[in-house]
Amino acid sequence: MTQPKFASESLTTMTEMVFPNDTNNLGNLMGGNLLRLMDICGAIAAQKHSRHVVVTASVDNVAFKDPIPLGSVITLRAFVTRAFNSSMEVFIDVHAENIPAGERFMTNRAFYTFVAVGADGKPSTDIPEVVPQTDEEKSLYDAALRRRQLRLVLAGRMMPAEATELAKLFELQA
Amino acid sequence: MTQPKFASESLTTMTEMVFPNDTNNLGNLMGGNLLRLMDICGAIAAQKHSRHVVVTASVDNVAFKDPIPLGSVITLRAFVTRAFNSSMEVFIDVHAENIPAGERFMTNRAFYTFVAVGADGKPSTDIPEVVPQTDEEKSLYDAALRRRQLRLVLAGRMMPAEATELAKLFELQA
Amino acid sequence: MTQPKFASESLTTMTEMVFPNDTNNLGNLMGGNLLRLMDICGAIAAQKHSRHVVVTASVDNVAFKDPIPLGSVITLRAFVTRAFNSSMEVFIDVHAENIPAGERFMTNRAFYTFVAVGADGKPSTDIPEVVPQTDEEKSLYDAALRRRQLRLVLAGRMMPAEATELAKLFELQA
Amino acid sequence: MTQPKFASESLTTMTEMVFPNDTNNLGNLMGGNLLRLMDICGAIAAQKHSRHVVVTASVDNVAFKDPIPLGSVITLRAFVTRAFNSSMEVFIDVHAENIPAGERFMTNRAFYTFVAVGADGKPSTDIPEVVPQTDEEKSLYDAALRRRQLRLVLAGRMMPAEATELAKLFELQA
Amino acid sequence: MTQPKFASESLTTMTEMVFPNDTNNLGNLMGGNLLRLMDICGAIAAQKHSRHVVVTASVDNVAFKDPIPLGSVITLRAFVTRAFNSSMEVFIDVHAENIPAGERFMTNRAFYTFVAVGADGKPSTDIPEVVPQTDEEKSLYDAALRRRQLRLVLAGRMMPAEATELAKLFELQA
Amino acid sequence: MTQPKFASESLTTMTEMVFPNDTNNLGNLMGGNLLRLMDICGAIAAQKHSRHVVVTASVDNVAFKDPIPLGSVITLRAFVTRAFNSSMEVFIDVHAENIPAGERFMTNRAFYTFVAVGADGKPSTDIPEVVPQTDEEKSLYDAALRRRQLRLVLAGRMMPAEATELAKLFELQA
Repeated sequence: MTQPKFASESLTTMTEMVFPNDTNNLGNLMGGNLLRLMDICGAIAAQKHSRHVVVTASVDNVAFKDPIPLGSVITLRAFVTRAFNSSMEVFIDVHAENIPAGERFMTNRAFYTFVAVGADGKPSTDIPEVVPQTDEEKSLYDAALRRRQLRLVLAGRMMPAEATELAKLFELQA
Repeated sequence: MTQPKFASESLTTMTEMVFPNDTNNLGNLMGGNLLRLMDICGAIAAQKHSRHVVVTASVDNVAFKDPIPLGSVITLRAFVTRAFNSSMEVFIDVHAENIPAGERFMTNRAFYTFVAVGADGKPSTDIPEVVPQTDEEKSLYDAALRRRQLRLVLAGRMMPAEATELAKLFELQA
Repeated sequence: MTQPKFASESLTTMTEMVFPNDTNNLGNLMGGNLLRLMDICGAIAAQKHSRHVVVTASVDNVAFKDPIPLGSVITLRAFVTRAFNSSMEVFIDVHAENIPAGERFMTNRAFYTFVAVGADGKPSTDIPEVVPQTDEEKSLYDAALRRRQLRLVLAGRMMPAEATELAKLFELQA
Repeated sequence: MTQPKFASESLTTMTEMVFPNDTNNLGNLMGGNLLRLMDICGAIAAQKHSRHVVVTASVDNVAFKDPIPLGSVITLRAFVTRAFNSSMEVFIDVHAENIPAGERFMTNRAFYTFVAVGADGKPSTDIPEVVPQTDEEKSLYDAALRRRQLRLVLAGRMMPAEATELAKLFELQA
Repeated sequence: MTQPKFASESLTTMTEMVFPNDTNNLGNLMGGNLLRLMDICGAIAAQKHSRHVVVTASVDNVAFKDPIPLGSVITLRAFVTRAFNSSMEVFIDVHAENIPAGERFMTNRAFYTFVAVGADGKPSTDIPEVVPQTDEEKSLYDAALRRRQLRLVLAGRMMPAEATELAKLFELQA
Repeated sequence: MTQPKFASESLTTMTEMVFPNDTNNLGNLMGGNLLRLMDICGAIAAQKHSRHVVVTASVDNVAFKDPIPLGSVITLRAFVTRAFNSSMEVFIDVHAENIPAGERFMTNRAFYTFVAVGADGKPSTDIPEVVPQTDEEKSLYDAALRRRQLRLVLAGRMMPAEATELAKLFELQA
């Protein structure tokens, strides 16, 4: 039986500069590059929690609000919110800063899921349970079931009628 | 008034090889890199439809099923399914091939939305309507409203009670 | 005996954006980067035709006419024109677009040759014959012998006197 | 007069995966790539402290001890130790982890200096003083003078006889 | 009137390691990557000769003979062979080494042409004449006219009947 | 017994263009990128001298003086100054040019050390002695002992009292 772990034990912080080749025609970070960085940051968090090599299983809906200009510094913060058999949900948020201007704002929140892979190349099932401690961790832990049901319904792997937790999504925001 | 356009007019095909630096510890394409390629392919399709510079507004839930090993050839196909004011939904599917082995399979389907930006740097509203022709295009066009409502609800910009089209999601798969 | 294949069966389309790091001091795509993209696109076409891993054997004379500015979208189209023992000639053309400006023009035509490599690491000789169907395919198929002789003469592997087909080059353009 | 700042206010954490293209012929991270990552991480810390664009002025002697294999996760931690007119010394340490194996070890400690640049493109002199709080910060703050003298002597900008603090280097390790 | 220059004044040497991402499925340098490196090396040589920004005008037929494995060191050597109005022909040769094994062999010879661009963005015509000194330089200088005629004929910009120098190509190898 | 080698036998010249992604917010080459290029150039020189795969052991203090703008051409020159058991000291200098402006200046001088690795993955001790010939080579050879002692003292592997050669550093510049 695997020992449970605190959510904070998988906390991973990644700081990056926006370089010219990361930008679009308007000189702002391309959305796809941010999705790539979130994938790397999330994968490291999932590795820390599971002590396994991991592969990306899914990304939930991600919205891009404010443009992040060339030369910005972006900080990604990721931790595992909840474990399910061989998969883990990871929460990732992103802040962008124009440091000389003293501006810092949150740009994105995302949920990725990762599957832990054992030495035999197959999904590993000895993933520790997550023990949430802070209010943010507890709230994310609780809502993880709903998000999981939405993923399964969208993937056609769960009948909407069975998604009992998902109904609550329409009251409480993910 | 902008002239409507066929969905096929924005069709964009992108073929890529999986190079060593694109892979994870298991020698397979990292999910984040595929998200980045889909973003580029989708942005080109949205440019073709709108004749504007575009920025990524969101990506819907994407699931990663089968691993895509180093050396595979991947083919992305993107076209605009439907336009909404200044935004466009783009459908993207991805096939992976091991050509010497004669294996080819679909690996992903995704929906990205892009916003067209005018010369003044503001969202442009002269986006042509999409005219779907094939069954696939028509089915994607019809379901676009539901997916849009799900996006708005998930982003906290629509009350679930107003998402009248979204209810159908639970019968008909996106 | 390997089954002949249509030229169109190897057709490969690659769409790319011109990113900052691809450009020279004038803000235009560097010729060398386009040669690299044509090599990848052509290699995929040759893989599709031969169902083998392939290596680049040569590139014919390529001229660069019009500059392709940062932010352009370029589309490469490649297919096998003719097979010779273990090698294949691939035709590649490139179009560049400034989509917001509604400009699109052909920028390059090139011929690369690739050698198919078997599981033993040696050149494979079971390359299917190419069956050209369209006028473009037929014209490229016919002229392929002449281009091959020019390559062999330039590589010092054929005496000019033997290059009976090459003489026609001076009447009919490659 | 610029307000002094705690060393911890410039703390920057950067987490990176070692990808194939970062490695040498032995499959380990190349030293030069680590020097590049430390430069980026240090520059962000110096930006945070000075609220200015910064440029690298120097790197002190860096030793590379243990190899960091492909697939490792590396964590860089940087903060400003002390400010001098328009320049700042930044301390950077690096830990490498093989997460599945549960191994983590410190691989490098380095000191970079950065110069803050004002809107006029010239060195800016309104750099806040650093207020060290922890024992590590205080010890690094104290020894910063000696390291600065060594830099100046090595750069031929200070006569060894004037390097009164440097003499202590031979008792107390940098 | 621009002062003539020795061929050796534009000599440019470039040494590169073959990194994982530069290789194909067989672990050897991709031809397209070598074409890109030759373009950069040749452009620097043409800059040195003309003291202008330059753009690639063409590459002549290039053959790839021996595979260059991952970890090899490649050395490119480029110099301007002859100037024509606003364009220059650059000769580039490439050697590959497996240094631990003590193996070194020439892998490629190529001719690129570059156009010098003036401050007004137009082709510049004040390109110095090339003065060849060594036997290699003289032989390349002499044959440059023939290669130029072949380029013009292949580009459809010269009638084969006018290509009086080209006829000699069939006796004397480029 | 391994045959001694001239310093010039390991001479390695590397020419590079500064591309957009190599630059910082001011449009100049980032210091960390130059450290990376010097590492590659130095490693090739050390390979040439030892005929072994090599790994970076250390870099000495490097100062960055003049900015190197986007579009510059930089030339690195590296050779082994002296061998010690299984390690080699490599001297590297860097010149930057704005070729159209006819400006060329030295930007950096650095000393890296590399360890030769044998087929068994362990440090190899059959490194040839270095025979310096020119004045520059002889002066660098002589001062190498002092620099080595400084490295050992800074790494805590030599007591300052034992660093008899190092004392001279304070009279004679490295």
